[in-house]
Amino acid sequence: MIIIGELINGMFKDVGRAIVNKESDVIQHLAQDQVKAGATVLDVNTGPYSKNPKDDMKWLIENIQKVTDVALALDSTKADVIEGGLKLVKKKAIINSTNADEAKMESIFGLAKKYNAQVIGLAMDKTGVPNNKERRIELAATIVAKAMDFGISAEDLFLDPIVLPVNVAQAQGREILESIREFRLLCDPAPNTTIGLSNVSQGTKHRPLVNRTFLVMAVASGLTSAILDPLDKELVDAMITAELILNKNIYCDSFLDAYRKR
Amino acid sequence: MIIIGELINGMFKDVGRAIVNKESDVIQHLAQDQVKAGATVLDVNTGPYSKNPKDDMKWLIENIQKVTDVALALDSTKADVIEGGLKLVKKKAIINSTNADEAKMESIFGLAKKYNAQVIGLAMDKTGVPNNKERRIELAATIVAKAMDFGISAEDLFLDPIVLPVNVAQAQGREILESIREFRLLCDPAPNTTIGLSNVSQGTKHRPLVNRTFLVMAVASGLTSAILDPLDKELVDAMITAELILNKNIYCDSFLDAYRKR
Repeated sequence: MIIIGELINGMFKDVGRAIVNKESDVIQHLAQDQVKAGATVLDVNTGPYSKNPKDDMKWLIENIQKVTDVALALDSTKADVIEGGLKLVKKKAIINSTNADEAKMESIFGLAKKYNAQVIGLAMDKTGVPNNKERRIELAATIVAKAMDFGISAEDLFLDPIVLPVNVAQAQGREILESIREFRLLCDPAPNTTIGLSNVSQGTKHRPLVNRTFLVMAVASGLTSAILDPLDKELVDAMITAELILNKNIYCDSFLDAYRKR
Repeated sequence: MIIIGELINGMFKDVGRAIVNKESDVIQHLAQDQVKAGATVLDVNTGPYSKNPKDDMKWLIENIQKVTDVALALDSTKADVIEGGLKLVKKKAIINSTNADEAKMESIFGLAKKYNAQVIGLAMDKTGVPNNKERRIELAATIVAKAMDFGISAEDLFLDPIVLPVNVAQAQGREILESIREFRLLCDPAPNTTIGLSNVSQGTKHRPLVNRTFLVMAVASGLTSAILDPLDKELVDAMITAELILNKNIYCDSFLDAYRKR
């Protein structure tokens, strides 16, 4: 599993404040803690309070790259913010994200090609989030086709079925899990898949339990990546164990420690 | 999910001793505790130390039925022990189990028909446990066909793919999960499926974690029943949450309590 750490996001109060006040130690500790906990990619989002997201994205990347060399997922709806980041990254980055809208795909895949980046493709378009797997697959297929037009390989594409909160969209859980399974069949080699995990538990009373249960089900459905909180130890334990059961890592008695020490 | 409580089994030291010494309170507490924790069926197995399994099975059933009216799963390799039990049960019982051997199926399905019982069908035969999903499906199909010959409905059949310990048969996890998914397609209406859950974690260092992770993956694959320890609260919480995500129970903030109070 590619664990994309979600914590460097300006929507979190402490992070938003650190970005405004340029407290690099806050950001750097978050980067190091997430990597230590198993994150192999760090999501970077300047958040809703940033007055100058382009400069703030650059500041975040520069400071993160002083303390770790893991890949970054540049998380912004603005192409210029992403392009500014792509010019700075030391490792192959992930652009978070495109959707299935033609103009958006042209812009994002153009950047991905120019800067040799990977792309998260959200199975939605300007009409909104699908409410069944068929529509999700249709939109994902549109994204796959466009990626291929740009010569972007399936492994560089992370298809995201759009996870919805179980408390308001309960019927979507099964559709999302089935979508993950079917996304893997859209091309050969299979594209990567990802989810914004914490959405599933928004507004519920047992968020960690709902998160880790959904993650295990998604891994069983073929998920290859997730944006999540790697500091939730029980969550990462569950993910490691699910992958163990699928024979992705060799069993040893200390398989949890062994995974984290890779 | 049909939770089959596994704790009334003479292989557990305290239970084995209670059977030998006829300590009915030990058995009755185990029955009540499991039902309170969510078990809807109780497995009953006299264990390896019973000198007279036929009489011990009767004694167990009589004592369990004094304190609870849930259904029982009569767990024995001996047809006469099962038949003795079937004569006593107040609710429709589950026979645990047949395999795909012709003589065994003739005997067990004959009893099931005569006493209107359900049957657990193990996807194995005298040649042993399969090491891939194709063979599991072949054996399960043999069992389904024989059940139909006896006029036993699919809902009265619990197909078991045979769970193996992840530490010695790691490649089997995926095969077992896929088997569960495919067993459901063997006939319409779909047969029930079940697993002896705790086998998966035999000999591992993190048994509860491995058990609950595997259970959630199996629920995601369509599992409808499991033989497990219902007193493992985190295990049952995980199962309830997995079913919630599949929209099998309606969300409410206190969904864990609501499930147990049904």
